[in-house]
Amino acid sequence: MTIYFEDLSIGDRYEVGEYTVTKDEIITFAEQFDPQPFHTDEDAAKESVFGELVASGLHTLCLSVRLFVTDFVNCDDGLANMGGIGMDDLRWHEPVRPGETLRVEVEVIEKTLSESHDNRGYVEFERHIYTGDTEVMTVRSYNIVRRRSAAE
Amino acid sequence: MTIYFEDLSIGDRYEVGEYTVTKDEIITFAEQFDPQPFHTDEDAAKESVFGELVASGLHTLCLSVRLFVTDFVNCDDGLANMGGIGMDDLRWHEPVRPGETLRVEVEVIEKTLSESHDNRGYVEFERHIYTGDTEVMTVRSYNIVRRRSAAE
Repeated sequence: MTIYFEDLSIGDRYEVGEYTVTKDEIITFAEQFDPQPFHTDEDAAKESVFGELVASGLHTLCLSVRLFVTDFVNCDDGLANMGGIGMDDLRWHEPVRPGETLRVEVEVIEKTLSESHDNRGYVEFERHIYTGDTEVMTVRSYNIVRRRSAAE
Repeated sequence: MTIYFEDLSIGDRYEVGEYTVTKDEIITFAEQFDPQPFHTDEDAAKESVFGELVASGLHTLCLSVRLFVTDFVNCDDGLANMGGIGMDDLRWHEPVRPGETLRVEVEVIEKTLSESHDNRGYVEFERHIYTGDTEVMTVRSYNIVRRRSAAE
């Protein structure tokens, strides 16, 4: 059963999978999108504010989107997502280190029917990303979600 | 001359380079971090809300960070960036298509001295991402920037 706009209630929470990030992945990502020494070079990272090699916060964000898509949209019983509008309140609370496992929780915060398109609504999700019991990142995302009435 | 916290003034604007994104890059990125059909499959994308293959908004964000880092931080006369805190008001206004060239403008919006560390301050930047004259994305980012007094 696909999750349509009508099926989401404010306060609903979903666990959307786990992902363990390796040192090689951290460096490869950073070389492409955030080539700062504390993300690409173990020795230089020791001299940085972090004191060790850490994942780019952008990488943590990307992995949280990957888990959202693979485990909450593309899966069986997935969300009828039509696209993203934006994000707010993205905050990196703690760095992510090589070998750590990310876990994502998604909560429905707000939902609004589209006034211009009767096949969709807008849903605000809050994503919490943890490594173990440590919350490393939070973000709110706005998605366009298809209405069940438009799909039937 | 490195750009330290003291060297930034509210309203300062910087052009930080251009990047042309290919169809292969769009698909490769999306398969890894945002594997939705309208980002990975040209035929499926025709049936989507976009009507054609478009870059993941997350990809556009990543490319804007890449340009910020390579052309504003890692370059000669670059920013003394110590790390990122978060982002707000990320909005995707228009999709980015294969072959389009991204151009980024950065503006200094706000700056605050750290109360806990006398070697740094916090700077709020607004980034505008354009393809041609079309603004495709905006975001505000918060960075930790080293003070000149701490470097001398």
